[in-house]
Amino acid sequence: MNALPSERQDVLTQLRALLGDRLSTSQSIRNQHGSDIAHPNAQPPDAVAFAHTTQEVSSIVRTCHAAAMPVIAYGVGTSLEGHVLAPQGGVCIDLGRMDQVVAVNERDLDVTVQPGVTRESLNAHLRDTGLFFPIDPGANATLGGMAATRASGTNAVRYGTMRENVLALEVVLADGSVIHTGTRARKSAAGYDLTRLFVGSEGTLGIITQLTLRVYGIPEAMSAAVCAFEDLRGAVETVIETIQLGVPVARIELLDELMIRAVNQYSKLALREVPTLFLEFHGSQAGVEEQARTVAAIAQEHGGHGFEWALLPEERTRLWKARHDAAWAALAMRPGSTSLATDVCVPISRLADCILETRRDVDSMHAWAPIVGHVGDGNFHLVLLVNRSDPADIELAERLNDRLVRRALAMGGTCTGEHGIGVGKQEFLIEEAGAEGVALMRQIKRTLDPKGILNPGKIFAPGN
Amino acid sequence: MNALPSERQDVLTQLRALLGDRLSTSQSIRNQHGSDIAHPNAQPPDAVAFAHTTQEVSSIVRTCHAAAMPVIAYGVGTSLEGHVLAPQGGVCIDLGRMDQVVAVNERDLDVTVQPGVTRESLNAHLRDTGLFFPIDPGANATLGGMAATRASGTNAVRYGTMRENVLALEVVLADGSVIHTGTRARKSAAGYDLTRLFVGSEGTLGIITQLTLRVYGIPEAMSAAVCAFEDLRGAVETVIETIQLGVPVARIELLDELMIRAVNQYSKLALREVPTLFLEFHGSQAGVEEQARTVAAIAQEHGGHGFEWALLPEERTRLWKARHDAAWAALAMRPGSTSLATDVCVPISRLADCILETRRDVDSMHAWAPIVGHVGDGNFHLVLLVNRSDPADIELAERLNDRLVRRALAMGGTCTGEHGIGVGKQEFLIEEAGAEGVALMRQIKRTLDPKGILNPGKIFAPGN
Repeated sequence: MNALPSERQDVLTQLRALLGDRLSTSQSIRNQHGSDIAHPNAQPPDAVAFAHTTQEVSSIVRTCHAAAMPVIAYGVGTSLEGHVLAPQGGVCIDLGRMDQVVAVNERDLDVTVQPGVTRESLNAHLRDTGLFFPIDPGANATLGGMAATRASGTNAVRYGTMRENVLALEVVLADGSVIHTGTRARKSAAGYDLTRLFVGSEGTLGIITQLTLRVYGIPEAMSAAVCAFEDLRGAVETVIETIQLGVPVARIELLDELMIRAVNQYSKLALREVPTLFLEFHGSQAGVEEQARTVAAIAQEHGGHGFEWALLPEERTRLWKARHDAAWAALAMRPGSTSLATDVCVPISRLADCILETRRDVDSMHAWAPIVGHVGDGNFHLVLLVNRSDPADIELAERLNDRLVRRALAMGGTCTGEHGIGVGKQEFLIEEAGAEGVALMRQIKRTLDPKGILNPGKIFAPGN
Repeated sequence: MNALPSERQDVLTQLRALLGDRLSTSQSIRNQHGSDIAHPNAQPPDAVAFAHTTQEVSSIVRTCHAAAMPVIAYGVGTSLEGHVLAPQGGVCIDLGRMDQVVAVNERDLDVTVQPGVTRESLNAHLRDTGLFFPIDPGANATLGGMAATRASGTNAVRYGTMRENVLALEVVLADGSVIHTGTRARKSAAGYDLTRLFVGSEGTLGIITQLTLRVYGIPEAMSAAVCAFEDLRGAVETVIETIQLGVPVARIELLDELMIRAVNQYSKLALREVPTLFLEFHGSQAGVEEQARTVAAIAQEHGGHGFEWALLPEERTRLWKARHDAAWAALAMRPGSTSLATDVCVPISRLADCILETRRDVDSMHAWAPIVGHVGDGNFHLVLLVNRSDPADIELAERLNDRLVRRALAMGGTCTGEHGIGVGKQEFLIEEAGAEGVALMRQIKRTLDPKGILNPGKIFAPGN
């Protein structure tokens, strides 16, 4: 730490006085906090502060602000776009110990939590109440991190994303002041939507220290099904008609033939290696049965067959565990590789075209990349498996991703459905939102964080 | 117009060159555009510009910007919080002639419209497609205005508010530049949520010139019902249990005994004059029947009886027309009065307390004010009937509204569920969002509109 400028050393000295051994400058802690699964080469912060209270977060930020030292918020490190990297060093605030469920309002279907509560621990906490929090990005992410990245996942087609499910936030601003956005009211027309401004801001506008979230009654009945299709277009047409008919499907996920092969191997299943939909239905017993009959009939018209049921909880769990493990299953097909996660989302009418063109593109470049998608929303992930020690491999993956993003943008879609911009999609953001749109975002950033200390290097390309 | 400073006269001369007789300075046109139903004393703009294109809106704003002249966006004038008043004069841009449906994407369940399209004209346009736009604030408002005020109404419990149903916007900024926010993708994690920043900004951050909205398939079946309750608490308990059970009720509206009396007289109905729920169910035939059976059973446990069905479209229409006409029915009880619309929204667990305390408060002051509410969201309107020529009457109504808002805030609610801040709730916004929260909104306002030309005097109290 000798290389640190004296001002930064002074900050660390002050923070050590505040936090004692909850300020760590150990290399391993710093490296762990300055890397993620997709960015294994750490860009470590100068120190990691383990905060216990909002007041501590405020003090840390105020101290850093005075010295113009970067501050990076950290939940549990499951983000995929390099959000936790510290390219300019600074202080990483680990919020994982702020893990209390503050209030459960059963009659209002809302909860208030600290940012370090993970979605699984919230659901464990809620188990006896008959309530659950549906947003499920796969990883057991913290709720603060999920809000900061506007996360969603498999249930979004029915329950929305973090955008729709955050009612209110407590946020520490760049100067250390604390504001509260929103109330527990279900809706409001009171002034600018500050809550939605912070949701998805990736730690660049403030640090979320408390969240009030919508929760839902656990449905009386749930059932799951898998349905294999002759071709991808039939699967996508089934999704489109299902959504158009207003069937309130809870999850509708597409795995292409390559992904099914990976899942079969990894999860010891014996599914036909063709494009396949995984479905889940929530509702009353009769409602779930009706939904499933309706979708089965639609699927049959589009070359779907083998609509296989999993009514028992353990079968349903096994099926969805396989879906959740798809990313690991893909990695296992190419040991030693890491995955470059792509994340486009397009209007659903363009989904089949987008996936098929992408598949042809991948095949023509002799790459191997399975596809899994939250197809009810038009969001899918091409899982590019990359040997990080081979520059040609990285270059190929990046070229495929570039082409995929541009294909999605040309179809009226977005460069990221749920992972965020982080460090990797800054140029795509400009293509998507336009120079004027990004300029407006930057103006807001400068207004809220004039010294640029909050998660620098994310969302906006440095220097432009 | 002789009193106008020469700079403003110059602006009008330039705009007349641009628009010809689509720039009006007639007193009657100016007065009509500078007043609303709740603010009949006009604060007229200096001129009204009837725009035909985004390019024209941009030119008008750019011209006004150069002279620091106010610009007020106008749809059809149905907002209730004085949003269209022009306390500092300026140019009102009437967007009502930008009334084209630009695109209907049936397979994606989205439409793109100009801002002057009203919700009824959109639904008339969609009729043959099997799609509909659900947000229904009662008035036949323009969609641009509904987005600008974050409107909702009777269907929000099922379909959300404008916040959830705007996918993308085209906005003219204060300097006349044009930006596009969002895409047609259902969800996105790409940068700051500019769409949600403009939704609900009441014309103070930019002028919406195009909207992309979610639409829905018209349900296979719809049914409506009314259910009378012995007391208000039973009605609210029924709502709470219905929502907790996840019954996807499309509308669930409460009318108190006074409102039923008004509706009976106005709409020639013969409902029992007790607290009453109006319900509507959307879904498959079997689903609708199941929903209704479930709610009927819940209602019966809470003193509800006479669950009356209206399965025929004409009966359903008659019932909901009576609900829609409730505001007129209330006014008819006190000829010559105008209504002071209140609009609090509280966590639903506090709804019965909030309504009952409010009723006692009104009774103790010998006022007469029926209540109607979107109770599935915890939002209700105490309809205060005011004789505007009697200062004591106005003072009484304002005192009741003040006490109602403070009651709602103390219960964790909001001062406005769906009408917005406008000119009347600026102090309440500070109480609700805190001085720091409003200061942050003001910073954003100054960043986007440094000259303060966009709808001045709204949301923020002048001079503080």
